[in-house]
Amino acid sequence: VIRSAVVGASGYSGGELLRLLLPRDDVSVETIVAHSSVGKLVHEVHPHIPSLTDESFESLRFEELSGLDVVFLALPSGEAMTIVPNLIDKVARIIDLSGDFRLPVDLYERFYRRPHAAAELLDTAVYGLPELHREKITDAKLVANPGCYPTGGILALLPAVSTGIVETRGIVIDSMSGVTGAGRSASVEMSFAEVNENVRAYKVGVHQHIPEIEHTLSESANMRASVSFVPHLVPLNRGIYTTTHSRLVKKMTTDDIIELYSTFYQHEPFIRVKKGMPQIKEVAYTNFCDIGVVVEERTNQLISISVLDNLLKGAAGQAVQNMNIMFGCPDDRGLLTKEKLNV
Amino acid sequence: VIRSAVVGASGYSGGELLRLLLPRDDVSVETIVAHSSVGKLVHEVHPHIPSLTDESFESLRFEELSGLDVVFLALPSGEAMTIVPNLIDKVARIIDLSGDFRLPVDLYERFYRRPHAAAELLDTAVYGLPELHREKITDAKLVANPGCYPTGGILALLPAVSTGIVETRGIVIDSMSGVTGAGRSASVEMSFAEVNENVRAYKVGVHQHIPEIEHTLSESANMRASVSFVPHLVPLNRGIYTTTHSRLVKKMTTDDIIELYSTFYQHEPFIRVKKGMPQIKEVAYTNFCDIGVVVEERTNQLISISVLDNLLKGAAGQAVQNMNIMFGCPDDRGLLTKEKLNV
Amino acid sequence: VIRSAVVGASGYSGGELLRLLLPRDDVSVETIVAHSSVGKLVHEVHPHIPSLTDESFESLRFEELSGLDVVFLALPSGEAMTIVPNLIDKVARIIDLSGDFRLPVDLYERFYRRPHAAAELLDTAVYGLPELHREKITDAKLVANPGCYPTGGILALLPAVSTGIVETRGIVIDSMSGVTGAGRSASVEMSFAEVNENVRAYKVGVHQHIPEIEHTLSESANMRASVSFVPHLVPLNRGIYTTTHSRLVKKMTTDDIIELYSTFYQHEPFIRVKKGMPQIKEVAYTNFCDIGVVVEERTNQLISISVLDNLLKGAAGQAVQNMNIMFGCPDDRGLLTKEKLNV
Amino acid sequence: VIRSAVVGASGYSGGELLRLLLPRDDVSVETIVAHSSVGKLVHEVHPHIPSLTDESFESLRFEELSGLDVVFLALPSGEAMTIVPNLIDKVARIIDLSGDFRLPVDLYERFYRRPHAAAELLDTAVYGLPELHREKITDAKLVANPGCYPTGGILALLPAVSTGIVETRGIVIDSMSGVTGAGRSASVEMSFAEVNENVRAYKVGVHQHIPEIEHTLSESANMRASVSFVPHLVPLNRGIYTTTHSRLVKKMTTDDIIELYSTFYQHEPFIRVKKGMPQIKEVAYTNFCDIGVVVEERTNQLISISVLDNLLKGAAGQAVQNMNIMFGCPDDRGLLTKEKLNV
Repeated sequence: VIRSAVVGASGYSGGELLRLLLPRDDVSVETIVAHSSVGKLVHEVHPHIPSLTDESFESLRFEELSGLDVVFLALPSGEAMTIVPNLIDKVARIIDLSGDFRLPVDLYERFYRRPHAAAELLDTAVYGLPELHREKITDAKLVANPGCYPTGGILALLPAVSTGIVETRGIVIDSMSGVTGAGRSASVEMSFAEVNENVRAYKVGVHQHIPEIEHTLSESANMRASVSFVPHLVPLNRGIYTTTHSRLVKKMTTDDIIELYSTFYQHEPFIRVKKGMPQIKEVAYTNFCDIGVVVEERTNQLISISVLDNLLKGAAGQAVQNMNIMFGCPDDRGLLTKEKLNV
Repeated sequence: VIRSAVVGASGYSGGELLRLLLPRDDVSVETIVAHSSVGKLVHEVHPHIPSLTDESFESLRFEELSGLDVVFLALPSGEAMTIVPNLIDKVARIIDLSGDFRLPVDLYERFYRRPHAAAELLDTAVYGLPELHREKITDAKLVANPGCYPTGGILALLPAVSTGIVETRGIVIDSMSGVTGAGRSASVEMSFAEVNENVRAYKVGVHQHIPEIEHTLSESANMRASVSFVPHLVPLNRGIYTTTHSRLVKKMTTDDIIELYSTFYQHEPFIRVKKGMPQIKEVAYTNFCDIGVVVEERTNQLISISVLDNLLKGAAGQAVQNMNIMFGCPDDRGLLTKEKLNV
Repeated sequence: VIRSAVVGASGYSGGELLRLLLPRDDVSVETIVAHSSVGKLVHEVHPHIPSLTDESFESLRFEELSGLDVVFLALPSGEAMTIVPNLIDKVARIIDLSGDFRLPVDLYERFYRRPHAAAELLDTAVYGLPELHREKITDAKLVANPGCYPTGGILALLPAVSTGIVETRGIVIDSMSGVTGAGRSASVEMSFAEVNENVRAYKVGVHQHIPEIEHTLSESANMRASVSFVPHLVPLNRGIYTTTHSRLVKKMTTDDIIELYSTFYQHEPFIRVKKGMPQIKEVAYTNFCDIGVVVEERTNQLISISVLDNLLKGAAGQAVQNMNIMFGCPDDRGLLTKEKLNV
Repeated sequence: VIRSAVVGASGYSGGELLRLLLPRDDVSVETIVAHSSVGKLVHEVHPHIPSLTDESFESLRFEELSGLDVVFLALPSGEAMTIVPNLIDKVARIIDLSGDFRLPVDLYERFYRRPHAAAELLDTAVYGLPELHREKITDAKLVANPGCYPTGGILALLPAVSTGIVETRGIVIDSMSGVTGAGRSASVEMSFAEVNENVRAYKVGVHQHIPEIEHTLSESANMRASVSFVPHLVPLNRGIYTTTHSRLVKKMTTDDIIELYSTFYQHEPFIRVKKGMPQIKEVAYTNFCDIGVVVEERTNQLISISVLDNLLKGAAGQAVQNMNIMFGCPDDRGLLTKEKLNV
């Protein structure tokens, strides 16, 4: 049995982690930590998770976590980096869902606008995108689970960028996200009346996911990638729709690209390369990332589009997939049962 | 292994049946029938059901169904009654999700406005509400799975009506339903632009679920119950919110009622009696029916409210619960795994 | 020119007041007061009100308001009663959109759970429902503009209750409201992720609009009316759908009721009695209240349903209608142009 | 008085035309034509247009239209080109809201995939974007009112493209549209259950608005512009959000661009250049197009974003603006009253 804990379990991602972990025979959740909800029953805060546990939320105590096989951190960015240094020698593995360990220190400090409190651990961390770093994840002590936008953007572009069929400069990514991506929040701007019947772009040119996308694509391309990225808030709960535009370096057809992408991802259980355009409703509540591609022959642009559920493949689902890889389970255990969905 | 088939598998309820049945070890789905989608792959029509099957939809052939343990019929009302007479001697059990076998013939013909094609089988059919007819369901040859509105209305009122604490005349039920209750449909009035930012009542005083509610409550109360029922369409995909008002025959407090309801449903795994008001989002994508009650002391009215997911406890989930009862499985198998949710 | 001011102009109702008043030739808005937004430009807070003014919000100074023809108070309940005593001798007329002057002092203190700070003025206030108190409004010094739920509930029932065709005890009212009824708010429970794909009842049996409805209906019926009222939050921005059930004292048909209602409201420019069921989208962004009625003959219940825009007929539109009546303008000036809509 | 007619008045754009034209003193609507609704009362089909008319829809008869000052055609693409040849000599002016007269014949036939039935009139038609062709519109016999996506895309890019500060090749436009852009439709894919909680791209690389955008931008830039355009359907009723990316030919700051755009549009009453990011809710139900710009200095990309109401500035509002220009009225008459909104 994999002995685990979830820290930051009262938010949307934390709730999804519990929903995925609690039913498993081969995983135990020893401690459920949530600072702001200490003492509340888990099913009061997450009533849609039926009857999974009678536990209450606890406060963070390192001695309780000591000796565990894996600890999931589902905290706001900036908190994980104060906890990991104290935790890393006490537990076997850590999977951090925040942005704290995804970037080199200079990019982190520039885009997150604060000093990094545990820069010495950045080299230890493995960027946990299974489709890219499966090998490294297997042995990782500390996995930095990718952001929701970067997961969508990178998966849409990875086969093209890493095979060199598109220019790595001037890539455009426009993403549309549901509201749970922003976490549980009490603010006028996230209130129903302001989000419903509305669309708005935000953090244009300064979003902290920009360097995460560029850094990962650059690494994959072995040359510098630059991305113009605009995130948009759209009125739905779950899902990210990511539309990318890149310039092909030679003439290729849509069928060529579908074949290239299908081959590239052929062993990845959660990537589905589609013939037509993907839709959010086809991946909501699953760990799938669906991808559709079109070559716009007039302009020789590759339009590659991905969809995923921001709380699953964009957060908790991918974290569980990483845990599976780290502990030698099939990727899809607890995500698919017998190659079938358990969500 | 329970050998099953789903007829009418391309709609929303049929899709949910497949999602619940296909992952099970103890159930096999031998045939997936959908008239209008014959030849299409199941996962083309239901892409949110990941990788569960590579089968295609087939047309209805009785010889294919012959000898099966159970056949689910998820067809529009009026179609099941033409099929059941030809099927009932060929298979062990039938669970019909339509309204065709829920009512005495006179009420059926009055509210459905057509003659009944298999009236001789109405006595055979058991009304499949587990909380009411658990025993009869166990041995039923033909289960008439309850309608979505009746499930919500009856479960909200059953403890009060069957214990005689409220008057059975003059009960008021106002229900608000998401759009999937109406099935997949191509109509202007169900288009996004007409449903979004709108609420509308429909079929006021003539809805076919009225006699289903009245008939069942009358039976439980051992006296005639009359109900004023108004269904409303509200802009969401899944869920029914049912608010009921009935007159208490003596003074009781909210706490009294909570205790009475909790005791009444204490052995029912899918009923949760709440302290506060229930919410659709707490039961969406589950087979739970949550119930909240308030005694309005000024008027001595009992306000009892239920919520459920119209496609699960209001349709496919309840059908699977009925199958479990019929075949000696725990109610929650495939609905909860090890008392945990599998949805 | 009617010289006016709007106090509490940064909320949704205040914004609608500005949208209705600023374009008028016969009205001037001398001061725009909003405590929390002092110094901000009006069109920054209300950008959907195009180019109507270059003014900024100001703080409340009684000397600025002194001598005005009418002051609109669009403040949270509890604030108006501290302002009105200081204002009432300085200005000609006050229209208060809050609940502070709608109830007798005992009901106010019981349902609002605080002492009334200006009980001596309650007799001065006229309950500003034009369809009921047109004469009194004409000369009123202080108009208490009705609440959004009471406007819907009372207008749906007024013809029936005041002509004695229904019992006044045991009336049931279930209302479904969009979120703007709750005002601009920063709370988790009003956030998009919690409201979307959800319905929930709230304040069951204790809502402060209950005594407002009962008191007004009792007055109209000349006998005590009792109402069981449940408000529901549904996922839309604007609109209230109000479904009422009452017992007919004699047999009547749907056509009888349509005729009675049509006659009752024949001189009211904003009431439309419909043949079928009303819909929110047919009154959104207008000052209309549409009403549909059905006699359920099985149970001899009258089901009467109203719809309105909670920010217009349920708040700012009705306030402007009241102002029109008070100053001798046609009801629909600025609400309809030449019997045509100006919204 | 400008004597007008609306042909195709039962759809969403036709309804908005009526809502804008009927209240005006200086315009009469002589005939309201709608093929599929002949004989129905206008306010049955458009109940949100209160009391504007007691007329019924009529069938198209050219003799009825003969001699009018202006006829609006709000028909599906492909129908206007069969009507205009018969109408153009009988009336003074035509404003066509369809795509039939916006493109050179070769582009029309390639993207609309049918032969053009009135190619000889294409030279007569003026592309009715006031911000670009104000002079020509003044005298135009036949105005081709721009498409909703092109209005958003062109207005976002026009100042940059026509002043040569961006490269005209490799422009990217991602647009998100509400559902009314697709018109009233009875289809499964536009049903609430399929659109809600979903986003999907469609007609990628082949949308008929691509040549309209490229052709107009090329003309303004005096060199060939190429655009990679992806339209997305998002779950809201009204509004188009258009995010564009283009490469600056020299270093400029965000402030430089704001100044350039503000100057470019300084005389345009319906363009508002914003400091921050625009939002759909700030322009819904108005004729405004709001524009926000950001220079992404890392990549030297200009990100320019526009929002508009697809039924107003994207259709009926712009058509009325064109009529105003054609008949010597201020642009904003009937759209703003005394520089104030009349919508």
